[in-house]
Amino acid sequence: MLTNTQNILIGWGDCDPAGIVFYPRYFAWFDAATAALFAAAGLPIHRLFPDYGIAGMPMVETRARFLESSRFGDVVRIESTIVEFRRSSFDVRHRLFRGDKLSVEGFETRVWTIWDPENSERLKSESIPAEVIESFTKA
Amino acid sequence: MLTNTQNILIGWGDCDPAGIVFYPRYFAWFDAATAALFAAAGLPIHRLFPDYGIAGMPMVETRARFLESSRFGDVVRIESTIVEFRRSSFDVRHRLFRGDKLSVEGFETRVWTIWDPENSERLKSESIPAEVIESFTKA
Amino acid sequence: MLTNTQNILIGWGDCDPAGIVFYPRYFAWFDAATAALFAAAGLPIHRLFPDYGIAGMPMVETRARFLESSRFGDVVRIESTIVEFRRSSFDVRHRLFRGDKLSVEGFETRVWTIWDPENSERLKSESIPAEVIESFTKA
Amino acid sequence: MLTNTQNILIGWGDCDPAGIVFYPRYFAWFDAATAALFAAAGLPIHRLFPDYGIAGMPMVETRARFLESSRFGDVVRIESTIVEFRRSSFDVRHRLFRGDKLSVEGFETRVWTIWDPENSERLKSESIPAEVIESFTKA
Repeated sequence: MLTNTQNILIGWGDCDPAGIVFYPRYFAWFDAATAALFAAAGLPIHRLFPDYGIAGMPMVETRARFLESSRFGDVVRIESTIVEFRRSSFDVRHRLFRGDKLSVEGFETRVWTIWDPENSERLKSESIPAEVIESFTKA
Repeated sequence: MLTNTQNILIGWGDCDPAGIVFYPRYFAWFDAATAALFAAAGLPIHRLFPDYGIAGMPMVETRARFLESSRFGDVVRIESTIVEFRRSSFDVRHRLFRGDKLSVEGFETRVWTIWDPENSERLKSESIPAEVIESFTKA
Repeated sequence: MLTNTQNILIGWGDCDPAGIVFYPRYFAWFDAATAALFAAAGLPIHRLFPDYGIAGMPMVETRARFLESSRFGDVVRIESTIVEFRRSSFDVRHRLFRGDKLSVEGFETRVWTIWDPENSERLKSESIPAEVIESFTKA
Repeated sequence: MLTNTQNILIGWGDCDPAGIVFYPRYFAWFDAATAALFAAAGLPIHRLFPDYGIAGMPMVETRARFLESSRFGDVVRIESTIVEFRRSSFDVRHRLFRGDKLSVEGFETRVWTIWDPENSERLKSESIPAEVIESFTKA
């Protein structure tokens, strides 16, 4: 499975009065890391909307474990990969390292969705195209 | 001119490693305070789009002066008012107090915009309807 | 167990280009909801540091399930309660409703920590004082 | 004067329901761009605290002009420079470009501060060391 790596420089405004990253920021970085993973697979998210007619890939569940804190000025590395594809949903795992140390582990379950052809106000899940899945597995 | 007041409880995640509010947060609160001012005038922003056909009220310039810092657990008060209406733009002033002390002063210039009827990809400024202006001045 | 309720008005800046709340914002609201829960129990967090000598209540794991999206202008209600106390850690559950509908469910595991007396650079977990636990269970 | 350049990839969560950057995000990027400018001058901010005994460089005034909006997936470039040093304060200018187009212009006035030796709860302004100023002007 394709793994994509991103480096993040922790900013002053990412940290709280304890001097460590305010944890909702990790979720924002993980969201961007998923976008970067799709881009690395040749599927930049802003192209998925017109190319595949999807309405988005909404999150249905996410969780994170926090093992070590990070601070202003630290450079951390996020390694992202899709760990499972199902018919219309998939799981992403992000591992954030500071140096060699695993600091945060994040998991996402997202759904491939289109606008419901019978009700343009609603979203419905849709089978993930085989070529999308292959983009992450071929290499 | 109508003045609207909002109270904000400063959260842990609003503050930086110095223990004080990370200043971009003030701009997010001021943006919400402008929305609350319009709602107080009977013009909730999500109604302006369908009711007046506007595309939004984009910011063209904003500034803030920081006189006193605020900390986690402080309750601050934002007093917001429109200080000037021009043909298609207007100026909002926000004053943020902690107790009696003026802590931050913010200014915004926003433009009343519609989608350009000649180019649906572009925005253009439009005269602010008289009844909108009256909603802020009648009381 | 004490349950605390908070109302949130969804702001423009809380939402993404799909017009729905950008999910990391829920975690920021849940963090503030935990602070509000402690305040409702008579234990405002900024008093816990001097009163109990703690260094904080860092998150070790959090997760959320997203059932329904929320939009700019919606008012949502967060109901927060501690669902389990262990020796030095505890679990918080947040349920976010729009009207009657459960929209997001969040879970947190936090640790009661002090500065390690043998190494002032490190945190260590500590037994949660009985009176703290009673503050959430008495009512 | 030293100019430092940073590239920013606009994330989904940086944008609002109009599909454009929620403007407080620009201030967060400008804050990080000032930190990067100091680092480029050989003065990483986390070293300034121990090396120069400063308490920080709090913002006293900031403003921004918004000329063009940016969207999810855009890569923008921030060029940052100090445009004036005074005894204990200085002005930073940030210019954010998308391609050749100037999109946002930001200005900051910050103060070089230390903890007041006569009152450890208070900050006071202090002369900016000559070698700090030279770090931005020598090249």
